[in-house]
Formats: sequence, structure tokens, C-alpha cells
Amino acid sequence: MLTIDKIYDASKVLKEVARTTDIIQAPNIRPDCELFLKTENLQVTGSFKVRGAYYKIHNLTEEEKSHGVIACSAGNHAQGVALAAARGGIDATICIPSTAPISKIEATRRFGAHVELVDGVYDDAYRRACEIQEESGRTFIHPFNDEDVIAGQGTIGLEIINQMPDVDAVLVPIGGGGLISGVAFAIKSLCPKCKVYGVQAAGAPSMYNSIRDGQAEELPSVSTIADGIAVKKPGDITFSLVQQYVDEIVTVTEDEIATAILTLIEQQKLIAEGAGAVSVAAAMFGKVDLKGKKAVCVVSGGNIDVNILSRVISRGLLTAGRTASLTVSLTDRPGELLKVSQIVARMGANILAVSHNRSAEGTAITACELEVQMETRDHAHVKAIRQALTDAGFQLVD
Amino acid sequence: MLTIDKIYDASKVLKEVARTTDIIQAPNIRPDCELFLKTENLQVTGSFKVRGAYYKIHNLTEEEKSHGVIACSAGNHAQGVALAAARGGIDATICIPSTAPISKIEATRRFGAHVELVDGVYDDAYRRACEIQEESGRTFIHPFNDEDVIAGQGTIGLEIINQMPDVDAVLVPIGGGGLISGVAFAIKSLCPKCKVYGVQAAGAPSMYNSIRDGQAEELPSVSTIADGIAVKKPGDITFSLVQQYVDEIVTVTEDEIATAILTLIEQQKLIAEGAGAVSVAAAMFGKVDLKGKKAVCVVSGGNIDVNILSRVISRGLLTAGRTASLTVSLTDRPGELLKVSQIVARMGANILAVSHNRSAEGTAITACELEVQMETRDHAHVKAIRQALTDAGFQLVD
Repeated sequence: MLTIDKIYDASKVLKEVARTTDIIQAPNIRPDCELFLKTENLQVTGSFKVRGAYYKIHNLTEEEKSHGVIACSAGNHAQGVALAAARGGIDATICIPSTAPISKIEATRRFGAHVELVDGVYDDAYRRACEIQEESGRTFIHPFNDEDVIAGQGTIGLEIINQMPDVDAVLVPIGGGGLISGVAFAIKSLCPKCKVYGVQAAGAPSMYNSIRDGQAEELPSVSTIADGIAVKKPGDITFSLVQQYVDEIVTVTEDEIATAILTLIEQQKLIAEGAGAVSVAAAMFGKVDLKGKKAVCVVSGGNIDVNILSRVISRGLLTAGRTASLTVSLTDRPGELLKVSQIVARMGANILAVSHNRSAEGTAITACELEVQMETRDHAHVKAIRQALTDAGFQLVD
Repeated sequence: MLTIDKIYDASKVLKEVARTTDIIQAPNIRPDCELFLKTENLQVTGSFKVRGAYYKIHNLTEEEKSHGVIACSAGNHAQGVALAAARGGIDATICIPSTAPISKIEATRRFGAHVELVDGVYDDAYRRACEIQEESGRTFIHPFNDEDVIAGQGTIGLEIINQMPDVDAVLVPIGGGGLISGVAFAIKSLCPKCKVYGVQAAGAPSMYNSIRDGQAEELPSVSTIADGIAVKKPGDITFSLVQQYVDEIVTVTEDEIATAILTLIEQQKLIAEGAGAVSVAAAMFGKVDLKGKKAVCVVSGGNIDVNILSRVISRGLLTAGRTASLTVSLTDRPGELLKVSQIVARMGANILAVSHNRSAEGTAITACELEVQMETRDHAHVKAIRQALTDAGFQLVD
């Protein structure tokens, strides 16, 4: 059974391997409350997962330890188990779907685990892990539905209360529910008045639906950039703990997650992965009532593929009107590009790229369409540039 | 005169406003030593500058405070002075060149300072600030050549020694020299055996040249993405302190800085600006001997414009072979793009964009050039894809 003493024990054990991550104020994300970030993205391995994995492995019997462990993951759990096993001197095999980003595979290997690449997706890797478990007698380390794992994640709750005893609300990402189960149990044990809110991606609302309907339900599919919390079905242990200890669950959209990632970069100089940013997105976009309160968002991890990050930044800049693109219909003669350039420069925007399209449908044979990509200040700036071009007699194409 | 007691006093005063930033281990940046990061990018205002500015303003007489302060900066110093003045209840005017990024101007205003936008570049803004200073009797807050400012920055040295008493080496970025003067003075006072290395951008080596030549020299121009340390001439106070207390100065190239920024994102989940990443670049690229040592890199700030960040990431991915582009010469007939797509997919690369160019110089009238942009794993992967296309009879254009 999960007890607060077990979480205290985990906290003591984890001193050997995990960092007590800092709580950092985020004054510009939601000005009507005092908002803070628990920076588990700065944890070793780049996410909180090492806490639960290490405590679980630490508690194995010597007999179990001698047979090694096995896990299945395309992400943070893989790295958490790999590091935890390496520090405990235990052999680890991690099944990873071959479609996982090369950066995560390499990171898992670097911690010393044996990586078994399995053709297909997560479910295929999971089946292979179960086969290996049966053949080898290794202990399977579940990513969330395990009381030792949950106790390990719960140490984050202890740290929050220790670092900020007067906290009013804590916002926690939910995938399978291991993190929030531990954190909510710890916080409600020590500080029952503190609210605990769970946050899921709208594209993977398995716990949200399950709690609403009063039973653990499986989603047919999940789709979100928050891949770390794209879980189809909660565990029975985590479902029950969330039902008992979490005040409310809310969801955030993909655009809200992307905006939160970009805001954390600009305002806080922190890289969060999608799953790590959902708590901040919920605070930013007013999903829970925090007015006048002291609130902590758990930023659970920062392992985002740089290619994805690059796209999130591009998308976020576009959404905020910080980059913009417009298309001008031109008569195809010398000097037209020059005139457009002059207007854009006068308006204080920086041209990133231009392209001419002479064969767009519906354009006259002597006409062409000019697409201009610019760095701009905001939506009002983009509107002013469009107006200036229209005033100069240019026709904009939508 | 600068004394260690003055730095201790600054440390006490700064408790009101500055964070004691965490020191975080960075195990993958340079495996032959124990490398740590002093995360001043996570300081309030996103850089260390608030330390010196606040201590300087705190020490003004009541008479001086009543007249307010003035500063000139396009970046971190502006935000540092703005916050410091606001916390001290003092009126601040900051002259900023109108060419500065809108994000930095807005951040300075948000802290409550009056921003005077000056047409032109830094030198123009500086002249205007001097005019205002003379007219108004405000106190000019120099960004580096001031003992109170230096004492404030020196508190970082105290914190490093306190957080890691057995540190062997500290790497510090140098612009005007305020940060390293304070840090080196503090560290050499408390722990004379600890080496202090300064790092400059090769595109702005003013302190490097000055120390080499034994006198403060002015560079005709500076050019680097590390805009926070693009300073043409050291101050006389900072030059003298660096000469006395810094063991060695090294320089890093633009590509080394960009690679360090990308590595901090991927490995440490931290956003550093160019100036903040030079210390890490020096460690990564072996500019100083750290083998077997315990070393701390001061990551001095994280205020990088997101558009620039986006370009640094793109450049870094390209440099690491994580994205690649190749051009194939095609006969312009149906099915050719399909064949190329099949080969690229079979090789496990993800196509980001393709473009056809039918009017490239030297191509036959029936031919066209196909440019393919891809997400790839590394340089070896790119080479293998090129080989596969050649093996299939396609001609690559360089």
C-alpha cells in the first residue's frame, strides 16, 4: 500500500541519484497569480522518470536484481530505467520501437542499457518486452502502474511542500498517471488544503475521460505533440489514486502546448517537451482558477527532439504574428519587387525569403504572384504592412 | 577599492532581489572532466546583470536616488537596471538603439523603466544617454567599468565557491570585463589555486588583444552572434583586474558558439544566448586544459531572440548532419520524384521539402534539378543516402 512513509523512504534513497530540482518563479506567464515552476526538465536524464525507476529497482530483492530488469519505452522511462539500473549495477534491457527518434535511442545506450530495437510501434515493442521477460526472468519495470514507481515520483510532492510550504495549488501533467498519483498523495497527506490539478493533452484524454465516466477506459487512438503523455489507458492503481486525491483534470490543445513551450523558452530560458509544458499551458490559458494564488506547475521533462522543437518555434512565431507571410499579385515587370521591398523595409519588417510564382491558377499571363516571408513584431504590425501595400496600389492574395 | 568584504556586502544586499542560481552537472559536454554549469541564464531578467545594477543603485546616496538613474544598452544591462531601479523605487531611463529587438525593448518597459528609443546604433544611444545625464543630473549606471557593479557580479564567484568548494577551474565569458573581474577577484581571494579562464568571441576579442599587448585597446569593429559580449574596448578598471586575477583568455568561433547553444538545449534543456554559451564552447572544444578537473562554466545569460535561436538550431542541425539537402539532376518526366522519394524513405530519412528548378544554368531543356531537404541521423547517414541515389543511377549536383 502507498503510504507517506514510503514516499519519505524513496526521498532518502533518491539522494544517491536524483537532483532536488529548483523551483523558479515565472512572473510573466500568468500575472494574476504567483506562478512557479518545479523544473524536473533539469532532472538527470531530462525528466522525473528516474525517480520512480530508481526506487523500484532499489527495492528489488538480491535474487531479482541478479536477473536484471526489462522495460519498454520510446522515451523518458527508457532513460530513467537505464540510468537507475546502471547506478544500481544491474543489467537492463530496454525494448524501443524502431521508429523512435535516434536521439532517445542513443541517450538510452549512453546510460549503459542494452537496447533491443523492435520493428513497429510501441505495442510491438511492449509484446517483445513481455516475451523477453518470460524467457529471461527479468523484472518488468512498469512506467506508471506500480506503487514503488509511484512512491518515487511522489518525492516531487515532498520537495514542493518543503520548498514552498504555503503553496495553494499544484498543476501536474497526466499520461498513465504515475506522476500525479505520487505527487497528489504526498501533497494531500502533508497539506490537504493545497489543490492538485491534473492536465492532459486534448488529443490523449484517457484519464480525463476515465474519471468523468467513473471507470478506467481505453482510447482507440491518441495524437499529440506531448508524446510523453500519449497513453491510451490509465492503470488501475493510478486510476484509483487519481480518483481519490486529484481535485480536477483539465485538457489543453496542441496550439496551447506549443505556445507554452515557446513561452518557457522566451520567458524562462527552459526547454520543456510537450508533456512537460501542459501544466504551464493550463495555467497560461486559464484552465483552472489561480487568481491571487501561489501555484506550482510541474514541468516534468525536457526531452524534445530538436527537429520538433524547431517546428514548434516556427509555429509559435507564426501564431504570435512574429513571422508572417503574404502574397502580392504583381504585373511581371522590372522594379515591382523593389517597390514591395521598400514598403516592407519602411514598415520595419525584416524579409526572410521571397518567391515568385508565375503559373498560379487564375493569374494573367503577364502577372505573377510574389510570396514574401517576413520577421514581424505582432499581428498589428502584419496588418499595418498589409495596409501599406494596399495603399500603394498592390493587390494582396489570400 | 574592490575588496572581498565589498563582495560579501553585495551578496547580502542581493538577497532581496537576485536568485542564488543552481549549479547543474553537464556530464555529456566534455566527458574527460566533471563539468558543471552556473545557470545565470535562470537569473531574474535572464542574465547576471541585475546583480551589479542592483548593488550599484543600492549604494547611491538618497540625494542621488532622488534624481534617478540613466543607462544605455540594447540588451541585458537595460533589463538589469530597469528591474534594479524598480525594486529600489527609483526612476530609471534607458536609452536603447531603435534597431534593438522588440522583445528586449518590451522586457525593459515591463520592468517599469522609461525607454528612450534612439535612432541609430549603440554609439548614438550612448551619446543621447550622456546628454540626458547632463541635463537631468541622473546617475549614469555603467555596464561594467564600475567597482560597485563589479562587486555585484562578483557574488557569482562567492556562490560558486560556496556551492562547490573543491572547484578546480571556472570559465567566464568576457565582454567589457565586469563579470570576470568580480568573479576572478572573489575566487582568487577565497581559493587561489582555482584557475579562472576568460572566454571571448573570436569576432570581438578586445580583452584578449588588450591583455596580450599589455594595454587596453579598441577594436575598429566587432561581429558575433554573442551580442552580449560584443564590446569594442575594455574599461580601465576591468582591464587592470583581469590582468591581475585571470589566468588565461581564450577565444571561440561563431560555429563553436552555435554548437554550444544547441548542445545546451539538447543535453541540458537550457536556453543560453551566444554570450552565455561561450564558456561552454571553450570547454567543449578543448580551448583550456580541464582533464580530470572539476570545472564550472558560467552560463551568463539566456536572452536570445527567438528568430536568432531558430536560425542557430537550423545551422546546428545542418552542421551535425541532422538535416541535409541534396540536389539531383533529373530527366523531366513523370515518376522521377517518386523514385527519389522511395530511395530516401528506404534509407530512413524524412523529407522536409522538395523543390524543382527547371531553369538552372547548364541543365538541358528536358532536364530539371530536384532539391531535397531531409531530416537525417548524422553525416554518415547523409553519405549513405547520396551513395544509394548514385547506385540507382541518379546524378547528384554539388
